[in-house]
Amino acid sequence: MPQTVRIALDAMGGDFGPKVTIAGAASALERRPNSRFLLIGDEPAIRAELERHPRLAERADVRHSSVSIRMDDKPSQALRYGRRVSSMWLAIDAVKKGDADVAVSAGNTGALMAMAKICLHTMARVDRPALACLWPTLRGQSVVLDVGASMGANASHLVDLAIMGAAMARVMLGVERPTVGLLNVGAEEIKGIEEVKAASTMLRDLALPGFDYRGFVEGDGIGQGAVDVVVTEGFTGNIALKTAEGTAAQITAYVKEAMGGTLIAKLGYLLALGAFRQLRAKMDTRATNGGVFLGLQGIVIKSHGGADSVGFARAVEIGHEVAGSDLLNRIRDTVALAHSLEGQDGAVSTSPPREAAQ
Amino acid sequence: MPQTVRIALDAMGGDFGPKVTIAGAASALERRPNSRFLLIGDEPAIRAELERHPRLAERADVRHSSVSIRMDDKPSQALRYGRRVSSMWLAIDAVKKGDADVAVSAGNTGALMAMAKICLHTMARVDRPALACLWPTLRGQSVVLDVGASMGANASHLVDLAIMGAAMARVMLGVERPTVGLLNVGAEEIKGIEEVKAASTMLRDLALPGFDYRGFVEGDGIGQGAVDVVVTEGFTGNIALKTAEGTAAQITAYVKEAMGGTLIAKLGYLLALGAFRQLRAKMDTRATNGGVFLGLQGIVIKSHGGADSVGFARAVEIGHEVAGSDLLNRIRDTVALAHSLEGQDGAVSTSPPREAAQ
Repeated sequence: MPQTVRIALDAMGGDFGPKVTIAGAASALERRPNSRFLLIGDEPAIRAELERHPRLAERADVRHSSVSIRMDDKPSQALRYGRRVSSMWLAIDAVKKGDADVAVSAGNTGALMAMAKICLHTMARVDRPALACLWPTLRGQSVVLDVGASMGANASHLVDLAIMGAAMARVMLGVERPTVGLLNVGAEEIKGIEEVKAASTMLRDLALPGFDYRGFVEGDGIGQGAVDVVVTEGFTGNIALKTAEGTAAQITAYVKEAMGGTLIAKLGYLLALGAFRQLRAKMDTRATNGGVFLGLQGIVIKSHGGADSVGFARAVEIGHEVAGSDLLNRIRDTVALAHSLEGQDGAVSTSPPREAAQ
Repeated sequence: MPQTVRIALDAMGGDFGPKVTIAGAASALERRPNSRFLLIGDEPAIRAELERHPRLAERADVRHSSVSIRMDDKPSQALRYGRRVSSMWLAIDAVKKGDADVAVSAGNTGALMAMAKICLHTMARVDRPALACLWPTLRGQSVVLDVGASMGANASHLVDLAIMGAAMARVMLGVERPTVGLLNVGAEEIKGIEEVKAASTMLRDLALPGFDYRGFVEGDGIGQGAVDVVVTEGFTGNIALKTAEGTAAQITAYVKEAMGGTLIAKLGYLLALGAFRQLRAKMDTRATNGGVFLGLQGIVIKSHGGADSVGFARAVEIGHEVAGSDLLNRIRDTVALAHSLEGQDGAVSTSPPREAAQ
């Protein structure tokens, strides 16, 4: 881990701007004191917030930008007015120029992805970036990807996702040899779409180092923690993630309704308050806020736009963890190995098999 | 509604066979006294269970079959040994022959779908059957389909799913003009895959009678009850359903853990027991057990294989409700209308527009 982790913040991103991003950075700094920040955005607004956070002010530089990306603009629009000048672009560009180890933004997801791709480019042999998240499970956490960076995936891209997700699991979950599963439907006979079946065959045949491919996982296996890394394409992954969030919100509403019903239920609730706090902590989506864009030549973290400072701080910390690791090298090496192995079938016919060569 | 609703049961289906299916039928009969049953399977086993349920015995005929479909067999295997002779096939065949208004099975999903398709055939102009479920929401219930009958869907099939789901919502939810949404991802710029976008345009342009198309819904909108009918293809739908079930199971485990922690938490739990019962009732998946195969020339209901008699009774009741309605006619008429409208663009050029004809 480098002595200092340099974090570029799009201070204007998200629904609340500097009020949340600066407070979040200050809170992340308390837990990660070897952070140093580059705060990009409207300088007066940033300075005003920094006055409340003197410790952060000591560990931060401010770079002015008068252009903020609006949350609802299409990426094409955002690029027209925000390329090279917006706080979002400049945060990513700081990573490209080597001024920062990671960029964090709570801004418009589509714009962030488009800018990250244009500014940083994808890694060699990775076609498209992916968005990976940490998913709370009964066993702890799992990495789930792609949760919406791109729609659809062929078998080869699913293999790339497995490699990238496994590298992230090693870094974020501290598992030396993570287990990996492909998200699929259960019914034996149909067993999903062709791309998923083909990816499964490829993952078994390649037997790549660094992770343990375990076959298919169904939707209910994610929350059970059936594997450390759940791989799916971005359309299904985004819908699975949002469906789980919606179900959690729905059950929270049921719990509130049930506990507020009768006086005696309220009394029971008060007695069990500690237990309910523990429950709420487990269901707090802020604890896992922070999606990681993978497959780019640099690290970009996406925070929920609606995150408060607690949630945004967690996204900053995820950025800190990833930046302090060798994630990019691990991904690059394994992707290269996978593509060389995929090409070997052709090579075998022109070179004698090992046994015959002796 | 016909005076009597005749229900054919695959008594051998599911993890527990007649023990659960007969008890479930008996319990459904209590609430739907105008049911009459055709119980198909191993006659001695069925008769033994019927002894405990004399009321059901009075309203049931038994048809012997010595062949039961195993839960893990592939459809092709199941068809080889079970076609025309298994309890599953004979239940479906009773619908085809007019001996029953609906067939209910807790057996192997893939085999049930394959047999239903071969025995009953799809409706005219419907390419593939769909599996629809009732999904509990904060507003009540919604119909979600396809949850796994077939993988992938083009725009035209998604339109068929919307029509079939809306017809089911009218029957099951009692909504005269249900709202319908297409499941999609949120990010503005990518807005999902081409088929979903094309289906959205078709649904807007066709403006079919009987439902109100509301555009896209995200995963978290399902549990919120954003629309009465959520339409998606079977791969994503199955994963969304299983993910929601998994999340609910996960939170149930958290609640148990939290409430069992300290003595005072346990005391609070006891005080709030009524509230927790209410909560458990809301989260009881048995209340919505029973998927409806749509698009066939007859009605087939799939119960969860692991359902107990309470869950299986609910699947029987769903069958009763659907059989007592004009679901099939409604679907047939609207599908025919949709296809005639889809073809109209071409027709316009050969016939004069209405204004010019005067």
